[in-house]
Amino acid sequence: MVNAAGTRAGTVDSTFIDAANEKAFARLDAADPWVVDVAPAGDVLPGYRANLVLTSGAPMEWAEYVGGQREALIGGALFEGLAATREEAIAGFDSGEIEIGACHDYAAVGSLAGIYTASMPVFVVENRAHGNIGFCNFYEGKEPRRLNYGCYDEGVHQRLLHVNTVLAPVVGEAIRRTEGVALKPLIARALRMGDEVHSRNAAASILFNREILPAILDMVRDDVPGVQESMLHLAENDYFFLRLSMAAAKASADAMIVEGSTLVSAMAFSCRGFAIKLAGLGDQWFEGPPPIHQGKLFKGHTEDEITWMGGESPITETVGLGGFAQACALSLQDYQGGSPDVMIERNREMYEITHGENGTYRIPLFSFQGTPTGVDARKVLDKGILPVMDVGLAGRDGGQIGAGVIRAPRECFEQAMNAYAERYESR
Amino acid sequence: MVNAAGTRAGTVDSTFIDAANEKAFARLDAADPWVVDVAPAGDVLPGYRANLVLTSGAPMEWAEYVGGQREALIGGALFEGLAATREEAIAGFDSGEIEIGACHDYAAVGSLAGIYTASMPVFVVENRAHGNIGFCNFYEGKEPRRLNYGCYDEGVHQRLLHVNTVLAPVVGEAIRRTEGVALKPLIARALRMGDEVHSRNAAASILFNREILPAILDMVRDDVPGVQESMLHLAENDYFFLRLSMAAAKASADAMIVEGSTLVSAMAFSCRGFAIKLAGLGDQWFEGPPPIHQGKLFKGHTEDEITWMGGESPITETVGLGGFAQACALSLQDYQGGSPDVMIERNREMYEITHGENGTYRIPLFSFQGTPTGVDARKVLDKGILPVMDVGLAGRDGGQIGAGVIRAPRECFEQAMNAYAERYESR
Repeated sequence: MVNAAGTRAGTVDSTFIDAANEKAFARLDAADPWVVDVAPAGDVLPGYRANLVLTSGAPMEWAEYVGGQREALIGGALFEGLAATREEAIAGFDSGEIEIGACHDYAAVGSLAGIYTASMPVFVVENRAHGNIGFCNFYEGKEPRRLNYGCYDEGVHQRLLHVNTVLAPVVGEAIRRTEGVALKPLIARALRMGDEVHSRNAAASILFNREILPAILDMVRDDVPGVQESMLHLAENDYFFLRLSMAAAKASADAMIVEGSTLVSAMAFSCRGFAIKLAGLGDQWFEGPPPIHQGKLFKGHTEDEITWMGGESPITETVGLGGFAQACALSLQDYQGGSPDVMIERNREMYEITHGENGTYRIPLFSFQGTPTGVDARKVLDKGILPVMDVGLAGRDGGQIGAGVIRAPRECFEQAMNAYAERYESR
Repeated sequence: MVNAAGTRAGTVDSTFIDAANEKAFARLDAADPWVVDVAPAGDVLPGYRANLVLTSGAPMEWAEYVGGQREALIGGALFEGLAATREEAIAGFDSGEIEIGACHDYAAVGSLAGIYTASMPVFVVENRAHGNIGFCNFYEGKEPRRLNYGCYDEGVHQRLLHVNTVLAPVVGEAIRRTEGVALKPLIARALRMGDEVHSRNAAASILFNREILPAILDMVRDDVPGVQESMLHLAENDYFFLRLSMAAAKASADAMIVEGSTLVSAMAFSCRGFAIKLAGLGDQWFEGPPPIHQGKLFKGHTEDEITWMGGESPITETVGLGGFAQACALSLQDYQGGSPDVMIERNREMYEITHGENGTYRIPLFSFQGTPTGVDARKVLDKGILPVMDVGLAGRDGGQIGAGVIRAPRECFEQAMNAYAERYESR
């Protein structure tokens, strides 16, 4: 049986679904993410192996990774010393000697191509309401050529090494000395200060710096090496916080797993396409084509250069941030195009396809209404409105070439609701 | 001859006025305020004398200061040691042994009652475009009982002493080590981050902290006393920046003095009433009754407690900030009442009575339109729209009891335009 929207979801009792969604939403809304540590991925990601490189999107075979995402995987292998040359790296992936994993399967999320290797430091974010942990690695810095944008050269190598050896140890010690930082109130505050903590993190980054400031000042007095340098680096990098908002969102969304729920618990893409998970269908991905985009390119770049090489930062939209809070961050019009009216309208539209209003994340422009939270796959199909996300845009030749707004493709929701009907219609 | 609006301004050639206003606006728009130092008022305010206490509003005789503003003057005299007891202070003011001055006459602006005494540290803000200097003293801290809100007791005394002996020396050294901080770009940035830098300074305060951070870290390493304590104090005080935005605004507005201009160059009030200056009429004040208000009171307070004890923070509105940028700071609805729609409409209305759009201060919600800048007294009368300001509200028994929006009274503009006609109609 197929319903009006072209799926069989209508065959499952809506009271059952509503109750499940209410529960999933309540769990999401109660999540309480704290960053408590920084540690190498190899030490803390569950089941991590020394020869493992993680990347964004639903898992695929090595041969399916193309373009920038393939380049990023090769760069990761080289950075980690799993191969000495590009050819060795390719051979390693070919033979399976170097393994590839999907970030989400390791409680992590990847920014753009999202490369993780064993030595890379990650934020450890504990969801104190539910006990689960989410991870995200560090922002490489402002330079448009970054490993997660498919680039690997001496500059990228040096900047990653600096993160590993100077920045992350300092930030980690500051976080431990602070005994953790509660991220949800900090994000809520940043929303009042012009951020949506996906494509704009200017306020959140300095608010985070402020949280660790007492520890940093103590560390300067204690002559901990690299503290001043690191603090100044943080102060100059408005995007620093994105990795914390991603880890916080992952730790929050992972608590949504609820039997029978049609709420989306993850959204991500690879070079092949976009994919979502539902709270009621565990770890299964439902895939569609690449997202639909509308963006603004940096000077000197053209539309035909845009390429997809992965992205899991839409975990922020999954929890009611990013595009779902863009009316908080109207100055993004400068960065990713659009007008205030369009941004506000887009943000309002998301209430049509979400289960509820966030209890913590609120929009000043909407009289502090909670952000639209918990995308309901049913509503996406019924209303024909696709979730909107604020993202960075990658270029064919690697590097960031712009920013914009994407929409998740309808096919993912159709796949998901078909699988949902199959799983639940006989109950 | 009296025109439709009840004044004689119509007798002066409008081409002459327009040209003068264009010049005054251009000077205001080109102002480039930098904070370059912190020093005791007695050392740097032009013509300051050891027995002088400054307060807000057009100058008055001692006997005219009543209620909280009188209490604040007495508190100032006691704090400075100009008198040992309240009775001695009153006798000192009576005899003229303790002198009273108006902040504006000393290139300074006062927050609320605005008390300055010789030992109080002030920010020294240099307008690098025009060479003039503006001053403002320090925020006392979050405690609602503050000298500038008409309170003086042991707690107030200790907090002021802490500013004098610990906080200001540290901030001063950090500013000098930084070789000054450009305030205009910082304010422009804060407007993108939810501030209007009058009643909301959360972003500007941490952006300022970030500017002096390298110096602060060096000072920690150099074991400068009080640095950690001071930096943590700054980090916790979201209102810290207001005094810098006031000094920046004063240094900017003072550059507007232009023959023939009807633009407002200052707005201030005392316990007696509101007053304005015009750019084309030098230092003369034009007075009216107290402002018209609409506010939100802190819990436990009632409307009948509201009292006027001075305020010169409307210097921020004079330069296109505060109420003239409140569409940047919609989360103020929480603090001072109102709704986003009302705030946005109020902000838009100000374009009706201003000369131009600010070239630096811009409103994301209005597609980065410059803030309405340079109140034209002619337009205020012609349109019947009164300038709007975001302010803190003082209580009869001292202390802050709420916050809200005030409007300058029409009478000030009538007085000013009558004087203008008298001065210019014969040219």
